[in-house]
Amino acid sequence: MGIVLGANQYGKAETRVVRLYRDSPRHEIRDLNVSTALRGDFTAAHVDGDQSAVLPTDTQKNTAFAYAKAHGVSSPEDYALAVAGRLLEAAPAATGARVAVDEHAWDRIEVDGAGHDHAFVRRGQEVRTAVVGRTREAVAVESGFRDLVLLKSTGSEFKGFLRDEYTTLAEADDRILATSLDATWRHRDDPDDWDASYAAVRALVTATFATTYSRALQETLHAMGRAVLEAHDDLVEISFRAPNKHHFLVDLTPFGLDNPGEVFHAADRPYGLIEATVTRDDT
Amino acid sequence: MGIVLGANQYGKAETRVVRLYRDSPRHEIRDLNVSTALRGDFTAAHVDGDQSAVLPTDTQKNTAFAYAKAHGVSSPEDYALAVAGRLLEAAPAATGARVAVDEHAWDRIEVDGAGHDHAFVRRGQEVRTAVVGRTREAVAVESGFRDLVLLKSTGSEFKGFLRDEYTTLAEADDRILATSLDATWRHRDDPDDWDASYAAVRALVTATFATTYSRALQETLHAMGRAVLEAHDDLVEISFRAPNKHHFLVDLTPFGLDNPGEVFHAADRPYGLIEATVTRDDT
Amino acid sequence: MGIVLGANQYGKAETRVVRLYRDSPRHEIRDLNVSTALRGDFTAAHVDGDQSAVLPTDTQKNTAFAYAKAHGVSSPEDYALAVAGRLLEAAPAATGARVAVDEHAWDRIEVDGAGHDHAFVRRGQEVRTAVVGRTREAVAVESGFRDLVLLKSTGSEFKGFLRDEYTTLAEADDRILATSLDATWRHRDDPDDWDASYAAVRALVTATFATTYSRALQETLHAMGRAVLEAHDDLVEISFRAPNKHHFLVDLTPFGLDNPGEVFHAADRPYGLIEATVTRDDT
Amino acid sequence: MGIVLGANQYGKAETRVVRLYRDSPRHEIRDLNVSTALRGDFTAAHVDGDQSAVLPTDTQKNTAFAYAKAHGVSSPEDYALAVAGRLLEAAPAATGARVAVDEHAWDRIEVDGAGHDHAFVRRGQEVRTAVVGRTREAVAVESGFRDLVLLKSTGSEFKGFLRDEYTTLAEADDRILATSLDATWRHRDDPDDWDASYAAVRALVTATFATTYSRALQETLHAMGRAVLEAHDDLVEISFRAPNKHHFLVDLTPFGLDNPGEVFHAADRPYGLIEATVTRDDT
Repeated sequence: MGIVLGANQYGKAETRVVRLYRDSPRHEIRDLNVSTALRGDFTAAHVDGDQSAVLPTDTQKNTAFAYAKAHGVSSPEDYALAVAGRLLEAAPAATGARVAVDEHAWDRIEVDGAGHDHAFVRRGQEVRTAVVGRTREAVAVESGFRDLVLLKSTGSEFKGFLRDEYTTLAEADDRILATSLDATWRHRDDPDDWDASYAAVRALVTATFATTYSRALQETLHAMGRAVLEAHDDLVEISFRAPNKHHFLVDLTPFGLDNPGEVFHAADRPYGLIEATVTRDDT
Repeated sequence: MGIVLGANQYGKAETRVVRLYRDSPRHEIRDLNVSTALRGDFTAAHVDGDQSAVLPTDTQKNTAFAYAKAHGVSSPEDYALAVAGRLLEAAPAATGARVAVDEHAWDRIEVDGAGHDHAFVRRGQEVRTAVVGRTREAVAVESGFRDLVLLKSTGSEFKGFLRDEYTTLAEADDRILATSLDATWRHRDDPDDWDASYAAVRALVTATFATTYSRALQETLHAMGRAVLEAHDDLVEISFRAPNKHHFLVDLTPFGLDNPGEVFHAADRPYGLIEATVTRDDT
Repeated sequence: MGIVLGANQYGKAETRVVRLYRDSPRHEIRDLNVSTALRGDFTAAHVDGDQSAVLPTDTQKNTAFAYAKAHGVSSPEDYALAVAGRLLEAAPAATGARVAVDEHAWDRIEVDGAGHDHAFVRRGQEVRTAVVGRTREAVAVESGFRDLVLLKSTGSEFKGFLRDEYTTLAEADDRILATSLDATWRHRDDPDDWDASYAAVRALVTATFATTYSRALQETLHAMGRAVLEAHDDLVEISFRAPNKHHFLVDLTPFGLDNPGEVFHAADRPYGLIEATVTRDDT
Repeated sequence: MGIVLGANQYGKAETRVVRLYRDSPRHEIRDLNVSTALRGDFTAAHVDGDQSAVLPTDTQKNTAFAYAKAHGVSSPEDYALAVAGRLLEAAPAATGARVAVDEHAWDRIEVDGAGHDHAFVRRGQEVRTAVVGRTREAVAVESGFRDLVLLKSTGSEFKGFLRDEYTTLAEADDRILATSLDATWRHRDDPDDWDASYAAVRALVTATFATTYSRALQETLHAMGRAVLEAHDDLVEISFRAPNKHHFLVDLTPFGLDNPGEVFHAADRPYGLIEATVTRDDT
């Protein structure tokens, strides 16, 4: 029974590409963190140290920069599709390319009630994400975001759960529900406008979070996923990863104070971690 | 020549206090990270292990939670003043208390064009800061923020600098200027409304950043400080700490592409670090 | 075509369990970060808000602490196996449990040339990892580490790679090779002594890194994997994730200085990222 | 009352300089993170945008690299002294230079029982620090370390402290004492061998931590400081910053288990923060 090379991939991670559009006095900015990877037949590089089939990660970095100019960045998805296509073209030994793009959003600085032409403040909420997986036959795009921090100050309970001999948790009728949400969704067909599609999904996720009474974070995730799939026929699946950022009600009775849901300790670790996918039934 | 105890202080750092106001259906949230410290005559604790003058850091934590209820959080400054006063009262050996509060801002989640009553999304831009230093005779309040990320896509140069034999930098006529700004300012008199004062200073800093042509980050800091002190008679001083987040123009000529200020590499380290205080001349 | 719940799991992440053994004056310490998760039929919790099958994440945390006492921590693997078994027992709806344990190592503080009985300094090198996946039929254990930072100051080249029109990289005859290595390996049979097995694999990985001339990081990974599988019949597979922490030779010629491999800039981003598995051929 | 420029400084932060010595087959490595800053009369740069007195931060970075070759790195202190001297020489408007150096230690990888000539593993414990403040008249050197994580599993109590109406803490007879220690010390005269001096102070700090019964973290800091000053006549002062990394005994009684100091929860926030200086009495 011999020893052989198994799955492998290589690439350049976290190339920080900032693309400005300055064709008019009103500039636009796309602020990206780009990671590329190739997989395929790279056995010679691993086993014999032969690099002749290896497109250097430095070249992948150059490609990321050059494509920001030559192809442009109309959206992270469109840009990632182009870079992935190029990498497959440049590396004959590759069977697949993966291009992951994080985008940081910027707002215009407000001056006299209007957004400034060329001065920006980083928005600082979620990081938008796009991942393109491309082979020589097929392409898959995953849109999404991470680290969108949401909180409800009421409208959340957790009751009726399974108890065993290690269970000490009290039931909660009215608790804070908070999470730092990650979400990814897959498209049946590419939308005409990736940015508009992103904004619509994000808005529906947050509005559903706000308006759904929560009997568990699981139920909230499912409700958000259902709402998105019902409203967006072009999406086939959405997945969530939601740390339950616990806010513990502080016991103020030793100090002669009541605490009717007013003062909380925001804990770091441990935290609940809930993951769920909502999908279409193919039957 | 004997060996003696020098400067010392102790306290509880990073108590994560979340205060909700739920008196009406439209909830309010104040999300704080509170650090307290006492200084004074604590020699016995250090030299003899005698804790009889030491108010435990655990008690300081309890005080932070209790005061969020008993005193409330109308602003980080007002809350910090109250906690500092209480700690001096509780610890007779203390000559001074320092209470530092970081505040994370939340926006209401938008539902059908309006902000929701009890669902929030973390704003994610700057962290607001307030530091109260209180002795038995005096009190000093420092308001501020940190990590406000700003960028100008034009209107910035760096030329005419000193050159020596280690200088290789080319002059820049039109560069990206970006920073993650920290600022703190001191008040002559306490404002009636700490939140309104904060918002006004912050808005003036960002607008000045936007509208001032920059011949160096130093000049920009000075212009922002001057604008704030000119507009706010009640402030006596403002200080900035501004890492110069370098964005390097990528050389695309090897790829047959020009790059007229469009594609940049956002670098991590090293970075310029510029610090400056603008103050009133007492003469 | 309906909308349905897809893959899902939930649990408690990052419970920080510290277990002391104080049966003799010479104490022992195991410092763990424990994450547990359950998967199975939890549809009712997601769709109907019915928690009756849900063992709370708080209970999972309690179980992690209780098992540190009741079962003990002879190794992260043995402990994780016990916790995973318990969680399956406690949650009838679960079909699988995943328990991931990070361990931070401590050394004894040296006093008069000997390790102290009950005073420790955190070692600070790699984090040891163990992941147990357990169903009602089977169990899988993955041992490993992450963040082991290695560097060779010579004995590394990168030449003869594929070039395209975006390639500007020069060939390197003698470069620094540095990485922050993650590794995981799977066992055919459980070793008698998990700690000894861990130490042996780790030592072989680092020694092979040291003694293998590197024509690419890929080749180094493959050599390390081959060495481990050849020496350890009980292992069936080993996987690596290795960021190439680039050290760029600084051009000192503008300053009249040569630089024969002596002064380097350690870069942050971007970085190469090489991933490879070495496995046994089942044919 | 006019508005004027107050205190200011500027420089280049976090230049990652790696210096290899390869004069013999047994290589040596010094892995540094260098931050430089100048202060002096830089009013024109702030007020008028005139950079003619400003030595660019890019030049400061180049100087850091060039001096790693031209002067060498026999120790972080010696290197920082040289760079600070050079910066004052190059910038006539500067009245002072500050050079702060962090050093990451590396061990040789063990192969067949001996340390390898040119392969290293990052030690990963404390970061060694050196800060040089240099004016045209004087020089001050501060040596030290940060993030040295220490723990005692017994030999620590906390009792007899001040109580007020917010005190709920129980007295502790036998607790875990853990901290992530920062220390800095100042020299009366420069030692002949900075590395040996560093190693001796560090060893004495950790041994004193191990062997001193602790009635409070304050007492432990004082004991460590006293031990260092007693043993090292050439040191005039030592300062500590010590977060009290709380390890809370877990209550296992609900599960029918006792817990005689065996199972702890390592908490993140809040944490006690104790700072103290031990110095010589000049009277």
